[in-house]
Amino acid sequence: MSSKQKLIMLPGPTNVSDRVMRAMLKPVINHRGDAFRELYKGVQGKTKHLFQTQGEVIVFSSSGTGGVEAAVLNLIRPGDVAVVPVFGEFSARLAEEVELAGGTAVKVASEFGTAPSLEELSKAMDKVGKVKALFLVHNETSTGVAVPYVREACRMAKAHGAFAVVDAISSLGGYAIPVDEWGVDICITGSQKCVAAPPGLALLSISGGVVDFLKKDPPKTRYFDIPRYLEYGSRGETPFTPALPLFYALDEALSELLEEGFTRRVQRHDEMSALLYDGVARMGLKAVASPQVRSKTVVATFYPAGVDDAAFRKALSHDHDIVVAGGFGPFAGKVFRIGCMGQVNAEYVDRTLKAVAETLKMPKPA
Amino acid sequence: MSSKQKLIMLPGPTNVSDRVMRAMLKPVINHRGDAFRELYKGVQGKTKHLFQTQGEVIVFSSSGTGGVEAAVLNLIRPGDVAVVPVFGEFSARLAEEVELAGGTAVKVASEFGTAPSLEELSKAMDKVGKVKALFLVHNETSTGVAVPYVREACRMAKAHGAFAVVDAISSLGGYAIPVDEWGVDICITGSQKCVAAPPGLALLSISGGVVDFLKKDPPKTRYFDIPRYLEYGSRGETPFTPALPLFYALDEALSELLEEGFTRRVQRHDEMSALLYDGVARMGLKAVASPQVRSKTVVATFYPAGVDDAAFRKALSHDHDIVVAGGFGPFAGKVFRIGCMGQVNAEYVDRTLKAVAETLKMPKPA
Repeated sequence: MSSKQKLIMLPGPTNVSDRVMRAMLKPVINHRGDAFRELYKGVQGKTKHLFQTQGEVIVFSSSGTGGVEAAVLNLIRPGDVAVVPVFGEFSARLAEEVELAGGTAVKVASEFGTAPSLEELSKAMDKVGKVKALFLVHNETSTGVAVPYVREACRMAKAHGAFAVVDAISSLGGYAIPVDEWGVDICITGSQKCVAAPPGLALLSISGGVVDFLKKDPPKTRYFDIPRYLEYGSRGETPFTPALPLFYALDEALSELLEEGFTRRVQRHDEMSALLYDGVARMGLKAVASPQVRSKTVVATFYPAGVDDAAFRKALSHDHDIVVAGGFGPFAGKVFRIGCMGQVNAEYVDRTLKAVAETLKMPKPA
Repeated sequence: MSSKQKLIMLPGPTNVSDRVMRAMLKPVINHRGDAFRELYKGVQGKTKHLFQTQGEVIVFSSSGTGGVEAAVLNLIRPGDVAVVPVFGEFSARLAEEVELAGGTAVKVASEFGTAPSLEELSKAMDKVGKVKALFLVHNETSTGVAVPYVREACRMAKAHGAFAVVDAISSLGGYAIPVDEWGVDICITGSQKCVAAPPGLALLSISGGVVDFLKKDPPKTRYFDIPRYLEYGSRGETPFTPALPLFYALDEALSELLEEGFTRRVQRHDEMSALLYDGVARMGLKAVASPQVRSKTVVATFYPAGVDDAAFRKALSHDHDIVVAGGFGPFAGKVFRIGCMGQVNAEYVDRTLKAVAETLKMPKPA
């Protein structure tokens, strides 16, 4: 195994600063003692800034997928109907989660590389009538598509008496999603994306409406039992043993984010993604996403004819120490994805574009 | 928050060596690349040594409770009946998990400080008839009680055509539980107990019988979907983003364990717990557990009359830099618990016993 830190231009995990890495070396402490309560209360406060909320927040010791499962298991009961826009791998998974929980997922599908329109969502909701929840993936990591209508979709869900859940795992921090203002009932993000901490934690905001609902109708999960996390969270604890080193790192990464300034971090993602899209276009490459729905955090690009995905990424890693991701599902082998997240800066972007351009000139396989 | 590392004599998390802590600083890598596959295959191999199995193993990015929930959600279907010995907080939770999953938990209860007898288990199984699974907590972290009949209970479960699940979260590594030889279908442990890694990972062994059952009857959970983990695991991956720094640390902690030797580590737990029980007895303190069921990894002891739990533990931490745990449930305020796990050695035990003796001499509150 290489012990060298490569430049991680993945759609997560992403580069973590030395300062955040070193925070993991802080002392082992009792998670039922004052030191942990102080740590977790700090994390809660900073997480509220991230979600721009006065409401509740939770940190699960799980990946982002665990956070999504938590949202589904807490809101969906057998027989419930949810509307799920499906336009990539992660939104398809969300629809499956709803079905696993005994609900019906009404899928509003669009081709990979696009997103369903707000009108199509509206029609689906009207048709269903009694919608329990809208589950919206904001940013499809698999295709580099971000929907431009989170606020409007949440308003629509509210008008139908439905909960609005937004999977912002690969976007929050690169985008602002003010959950109180926009009426997001549960918003989910991961530690290892725009927050630039190591992987292993899921961050959630929880609206008052969800709290009230769960008081009357508690969920059937324990590990992801939101009311239990809120109860423990009110005194600065988690119900189950927290992944302590990751909490230390998250605390430091959130401090780093707030020191930079939330608005500035979002702007930086605007700027860096614009440079990346410009750069790949100048190489004559075609982005997967149509221009109106291009993600700022994942730049997915079709390979030119004849480029071998595995050979390209291997050369990029071996010769340039830069790691990018391949394509998902129908795009496997046809697409590469550059992450534009967290610590991304002009130097990283420049290095990446130069290395991609050089590597694409490789002799093609016969 | 103190930045000093105290001596952690908790029943988890426990002291982590510098070597294991520093492993968390290894480079961020793509969890879909060769470097991670190499890492995880190494972890799988060492985890098989820990469980003494030729079968399958899984590592979840979750606490031990997540691992227990995984066992329940994968085996229990609505209407199933499970037998659950209940003799403390964690076994009570296990029974609740079964009920949450739609099953019926037939509880075989005993007073805290004791464990139900094998005969009582046998009677309960006979009475139920069609038992889907036995869920046995090996070591009740809440009371310092370890059941002495894991092997026999598993044999009994088999004779009833039931799966045998053993929660060995706070015991495996301090005890040997050879899962193949003893017929344990799912055994669960945590990273932060006798394995002496940081918290945040659950380790499970999975029998061929469980694999076959799940092929016919897949579970309704995604985050804890055992077949999905086995499928990805066969190529050295996890289905969802792994908590990478914790995998690095676990790998190092398991290396440390295997270098010491599994048998030697178990012996060390024998020896150190004997010293602790002797020491508290010499102070005139009464252990919670009756002698036949005393845990080697958690030494739970009643306070002498008049000792204030919070004041005692605060003084121990403040004056001696030693952290022990308080009591659970009915024992809250009446009991303190010393962890005897992982890196525990004669010096730690000696320091702890001296500090406890000195602190108990504190002036009592009026």
